[in-house]
Amino acid sequence: MQDVRVVFLGTGSATPSRERNVAAMAIAFDGRTLLFDCGEATQHQLMRSDLAPSSIEAIFITHLHGDHLYGLPGLIATLGLYGRERLLPIYGPPGLRRFLAALPYPGAPYGVEVHEAADCFGDGYRVVHRLLDHTVPCFGYSFLEDDRPGRFDVESARALGVPEGPLFGALQRGSAVTLPSGRVIEPASVVGPTRPGRRIVYCTDTRPCAASIELARDADLLVHEATYGDDMAAEAAPRGHSTAAEAARIAKAAGVRQLVLTHFSARYRDVAPLLADAQAVFPASEVAADFAAFVVHATPSTSSSSG
Amino acid sequence: MQDVRVVFLGTGSATPSRERNVAAMAIAFDGRTLLFDCGEATQHQLMRSDLAPSSIEAIFITHLHGDHLYGLPGLIATLGLYGRERLLPIYGPPGLRRFLAALPYPGAPYGVEVHEAADCFGDGYRVVHRLLDHTVPCFGYSFLEDDRPGRFDVESARALGVPEGPLFGALQRGSAVTLPSGRVIEPASVVGPTRPGRRIVYCTDTRPCAASIELARDADLLVHEATYGDDMAAEAAPRGHSTAAEAARIAKAAGVRQLVLTHFSARYRDVAPLLADAQAVFPASEVAADFAAFVVHATPSTSSSSG
Repeated sequence: MQDVRVVFLGTGSATPSRERNVAAMAIAFDGRTLLFDCGEATQHQLMRSDLAPSSIEAIFITHLHGDHLYGLPGLIATLGLYGRERLLPIYGPPGLRRFLAALPYPGAPYGVEVHEAADCFGDGYRVVHRLLDHTVPCFGYSFLEDDRPGRFDVESARALGVPEGPLFGALQRGSAVTLPSGRVIEPASVVGPTRPGRRIVYCTDTRPCAASIELARDADLLVHEATYGDDMAAEAAPRGHSTAAEAARIAKAAGVRQLVLTHFSARYRDVAPLLADAQAVFPASEVAADFAAFVVHATPSTSSSSG
Repeated sequence: MQDVRVVFLGTGSATPSRERNVAAMAIAFDGRTLLFDCGEATQHQLMRSDLAPSSIEAIFITHLHGDHLYGLPGLIATLGLYGRERLLPIYGPPGLRRFLAALPYPGAPYGVEVHEAADCFGDGYRVVHRLLDHTVPCFGYSFLEDDRPGRFDVESARALGVPEGPLFGALQRGSAVTLPSGRVIEPASVVGPTRPGRRIVYCTDTRPCAASIELARDADLLVHEATYGDDMAAEAAPRGHSTAAEAARIAKAAGVRQLVLTHFSARYRDVAPLLADAQAVFPASEVAADFAAFVVHATPSTSSSSG
């Protein structure tokens, strides 16, 4: 996996505004796209982004509120008109299958495969889900890049007398090998520590909760909702939402590298105060905007070891 | 009813393009709006138009294909968030109620009243429907402004000796009156002919058909789909669509005053050739564009008689 980018397609809550569409976010890598949430007009936002709809590999719906869901029927139809042939897996909470089946003309020329309350095992990654704390069942998702094997140290292998060829491969795959001399070489002698994959976590809509912290533990990037600022703290709880400061406390407790706030109420035309609220708690906070992209680099230890 | 405007909110077919959103059209008058079709992102288009969502009085859905329908759930939700309290009547084909009822969280704080295969009797107008000829059940709609009573000729009434007061009103309401002298005055002596209301007809999606001609007979404005040009005439029929020339022949057969083409396939970035096809058959043809507005004046005879 080369560059992993998080691209925001909609960063508002409840209703679209001139500045922000309703919820959608993409994780894009190697010409493949995973879409998280699909509010109305997400296909329009995709059209205005640099992401090709044909690159969508799977879709993850957090919950069945319209501002996270109502773009899905149109996107499914459009992918068919664009000539999609491969299956489209869609993950989401219970009720998603029934919603899609109840569309008046739900057929797509390709297949749509609905997975309710399930984890996704993709090529080079997993996406796992946890139940968050919202007014209706809502999943947070963690994108987990597969761990990569440690770096193979060719110089050390040669110095230990390992001949180039199949034994190199065996060591890299983690097996000890016996040299013609009878000497046994352990993989740890020539292969560095496993390099952890990148981890990107998407938590919206939710109150601050233990599941978010668990999901986000040590993540490279946590995307967390911040529907409100401190001025609306009293309203956030009954509505099942978080303030920016609450999101920042989740980021801090989980020990993430970076926090990006999204899902802003339309009452905040300027979200700078929300950013300030968050940075006061967790300095590595940012705010999302429609079409903003964040590149997620491999963890620093990996970067330096893969130099 | 003062100015009656037809405002196009989406003039493309099947999928949105950068130039055209999917189907939606408004008839607006006296601060009231009737919405015809509601493709995905119609609420976004409304936001970019000069029409207030709160002015929507009723919605008419032609058929249950997504490009005419998938903006409805989001619009219903948004109207609630904007504080709507009055009922929202929605007219459409059978199946519309089931679609809306199957939404995961369909409740709106105000009431949504679904009318399947029904005519609408509004304040100052009616909207009647006819089954057109598409691949699925699809209604054409005719907006019929109430006829207005003929002009009361005060000078003639005075000359005939009618005293100002209740007898004026009786004549204007169409009753003969007897003067103190015993002379009987017929209303036709002092009241001009009934002035017909404006008539705006919306036919999409459809093959050319007798129902469209019947619906559009003598209309002030016919909005008719022209998904294709002559180059795609062979494909139009099996897909249940019309070419621009076919739409023009409907306009001609119905004797309408003006034709406006809409619902263009995204294959036509430039619809000038479609306009030329139509004008060759029916010169008073125009093409719609997103946000284009057409003012529908009262019929010429009325204009001149009402000075």
